[in-house]
Amino acid sequence: MPALIQPRTPPGTLELLPREQMVFQHMQDVIRRGFERFGFVPVETPVFEFKDILLTKSGGETEKQVYFVQSTGAIKEGHEAELALRFDLTVPLARYVAEHEHQLAFPFRRYQIQRVYRGERAQKGRFREFYQCDIDVIGKDKLGIGYDAEIPAIIVQIFEELKIGDFTIHFSNRKILRGFLEMRGEADSGKQQLVLREIDKLDKIGKDKVREAVAALGLAPDCIDQLIELVSFKGTNEQIIQKLNELTTASEGLLREGFTELRHVADALKTLGVPENRARINLAIARGLDYYTGTVYETLIDDHPEFGSVCSGGRYDDLASLYTKSKLPGVGISIGLTRLYDQLTAHKLLPEQKEKTTAQVMIALLDMQPGEETQEALYLGTKLRHAGFNVENYWEQGKLDKKFKYADRVGVPFVIIVGPEELKAGIVKIKNMTTKEQFEVPHDKLVEKLRALAPSRP
Amino acid sequence: MPALIQPRTPPGTLELLPREQMVFQHMQDVIRRGFERFGFVPVETPVFEFKDILLTKSGGETEKQVYFVQSTGAIKEGHEAELALRFDLTVPLARYVAEHEHQLAFPFRRYQIQRVYRGERAQKGRFREFYQCDIDVIGKDKLGIGYDAEIPAIIVQIFEELKIGDFTIHFSNRKILRGFLEMRGEADSGKQQLVLREIDKLDKIGKDKVREAVAALGLAPDCIDQLIELVSFKGTNEQIIQKLNELTTASEGLLREGFTELRHVADALKTLGVPENRARINLAIARGLDYYTGTVYETLIDDHPEFGSVCSGGRYDDLASLYTKSKLPGVGISIGLTRLYDQLTAHKLLPEQKEKTTAQVMIALLDMQPGEETQEALYLGTKLRHAGFNVENYWEQGKLDKKFKYADRVGVPFVIIVGPEELKAGIVKIKNMTTKEQFEVPHDKLVEKLRALAPSRP
Repeated sequence: MPALIQPRTPPGTLELLPREQMVFQHMQDVIRRGFERFGFVPVETPVFEFKDILLTKSGGETEKQVYFVQSTGAIKEGHEAELALRFDLTVPLARYVAEHEHQLAFPFRRYQIQRVYRGERAQKGRFREFYQCDIDVIGKDKLGIGYDAEIPAIIVQIFEELKIGDFTIHFSNRKILRGFLEMRGEADSGKQQLVLREIDKLDKIGKDKVREAVAALGLAPDCIDQLIELVSFKGTNEQIIQKLNELTTASEGLLREGFTELRHVADALKTLGVPENRARINLAIARGLDYYTGTVYETLIDDHPEFGSVCSGGRYDDLASLYTKSKLPGVGISIGLTRLYDQLTAHKLLPEQKEKTTAQVMIALLDMQPGEETQEALYLGTKLRHAGFNVENYWEQGKLDKKFKYADRVGVPFVIIVGPEELKAGIVKIKNMTTKEQFEVPHDKLVEKLRALAPSRP
Repeated sequence: MPALIQPRTPPGTLELLPREQMVFQHMQDVIRRGFERFGFVPVETPVFEFKDILLTKSGGETEKQVYFVQSTGAIKEGHEAELALRFDLTVPLARYVAEHEHQLAFPFRRYQIQRVYRGERAQKGRFREFYQCDIDVIGKDKLGIGYDAEIPAIIVQIFEELKIGDFTIHFSNRKILRGFLEMRGEADSGKQQLVLREIDKLDKIGKDKVREAVAALGLAPDCIDQLIELVSFKGTNEQIIQKLNELTTASEGLLREGFTELRHVADALKTLGVPENRARINLAIARGLDYYTGTVYETLIDDHPEFGSVCSGGRYDDLASLYTKSKLPGVGISIGLTRLYDQLTAHKLLPEQKEKTTAQVMIALLDMQPGEETQEALYLGTKLRHAGFNVENYWEQGKLDKKFKYADRVGVPFVIIVGPEELKAGIVKIKNMTTKEQFEVPHDKLVEKLRALAPSRP
């Protein structure tokens, strides 16, 4: 007999036990329902893409983390890998929209909930395989700024339904900082990007370090002072708008444009009924990615800023310029579900899950040989399923005690027993596995009784 | 400006437009609900497994079709690939159960709906990436035969809910043919497997070719005659049981064991209320895979036998002997969803999908600047969402005609307009995009009116 192979999962993956998987799926379901409630339509793309499509966005860090895919045959023939696993859902979206452009209606509102892959160095909290839940609205040639306000409104509704405690979507507009630099004579967009990347670290590394880093980029001391003052300014959305208004009255350029957009988003959020403690202007939010050109979002769990942003995104000028001549501006956001789930469970921040299994009722079949009692019990199970209950049949032979033990272990809350006496009397025995009570119910009261006992049920 | 990269998907993948994806997702939802209704619990495993875990089951065909996965870093360092994409959900299940054995309750009933990967030669109808929807019940040391009957009962319920026309689950028990050969002095199990593989082709290549192939394996002519007669015997389940009973009365071995199991499954199916035209004994079903040791299933669409089996599985003695010393017998079945969807749509066998988008209502926002009308319209949208409708906001500026054109293109059935007059009068205008009618409704009748217009809706 050959030695056993040790059963194990690759590092950087999150594999769950069924009861945990049920929690994860519940979160996924809430997110999907939330997206659909605002009329987003589903898209799924293949897990792998052609290499030339995937590896165009940036040369550096990303390319080092890509997983290449190759079949046995191709390896034997000495071919280089043609395919690679997607590392986000944005590149596949760009390819998708360019490929199917003429079959889509614009603004195109799609959601996509799939796993992505990054060959990260293995360490705690870093995943090589993780779910992203993305929504994007893509316009053709142009896209109204109202969509920039709708995106956080959707996230607020979903996160509230997930009951994960207080959270805040921080938002800003990249045009404001870039416009500010422009106004101060720093017109080089490459340099602007570098400054923004440093500013983005403000909440993590503090003012002094950012000041140092920005100075090293050659910004004038008084420009730095003003910049740091601006991005550290705290206040209500109205107060920040006020401050920006004062700063921008003289300006006609990018700064004013960014201000107008930001004010519009803040106003529309009010109109959408989003409370201010859920969506706050934070001028230090700049996002590391130069890909974003206007509104940007990050989401923090209020009591756990150390989680980092659990849901980020923003506005971009052109989704798919590498694949199509059409100009496709868009705005989107992404929930990093695997990491979020992992952090929330590690800190016990998810609402307690009552259900341990999908079944609400177990039918304990008394007899291995199909007889009248088995038939009756199975019939009652079918009836309960029609009424919306999930019902498990337990077919193993043995003593009733063993069946109850199984029900306990699995976590099914009610067990139904039909023995010869019950059959004759037209009743069933129900055992409530939580209270250990056992009682009898006539057939025609069964559905009603179970509904009363488990009121959250169908 | 660099040349455009042609946006394209790798061959052998099925990428759908949103309205097609909605149909696909509906099928997936029905399948998942069907599994949960019988108390199966969800499992998801990583898309890749360690190579030594994945490539143990069989050396031949499978290994040639495996996709290996390697990060850029590992390739540069000249390492051989350590990971490979799963080619089915059975090997990951075996690894999962062995790895988490002590945290699971047995019989362990899991469902898994995920994609699998095979580096097949590209040709029509062959997929390199496809969904499998699997259920399995795994016992510890033993597993009651009742589960073998429950599996097809679940599939019948799901396929009926999918409304894909008439279908039949053909089932048999591999012990019967192996036991028959044993009785005829062919005790070598390797030879038995070879004979079963030929028998399995009966419905495809016909009696004569099977006879030839079996003769080439060295079976005696009268044994061949009896065998062919047995597997070609057509009749009701009762008639086949009858015939087998006559054949097996004298026998005490494997043949009798297989017969007893088969009869039990047929009886339990009756008890479960499965009509005979949905689940028929067919002794020619042997499955190519030696992995199966008892009950075996194949499912055919009655009017399209050329689709091949769309849902197959069976009973196995030991799930995970490569990874654990525990004996884990099980029974399971798998729906090949991607191929099934592809075949059904190619033949227009899926029920017509009325919804083209997820939204049932579109709010046409008249004013780009948030004003009272916008606020009112957005408020009504929120109210409708609370009532269970999916509601899309259309934020683009422009004439009303353009908004209607968009609604038409996207396929949203109702558009709501709130202008200054409507605001004053406390009413909204609704346009029915199907009939092109337009009418007015007071705010407090809106939900009721829309429910009446779209009765299938919430």
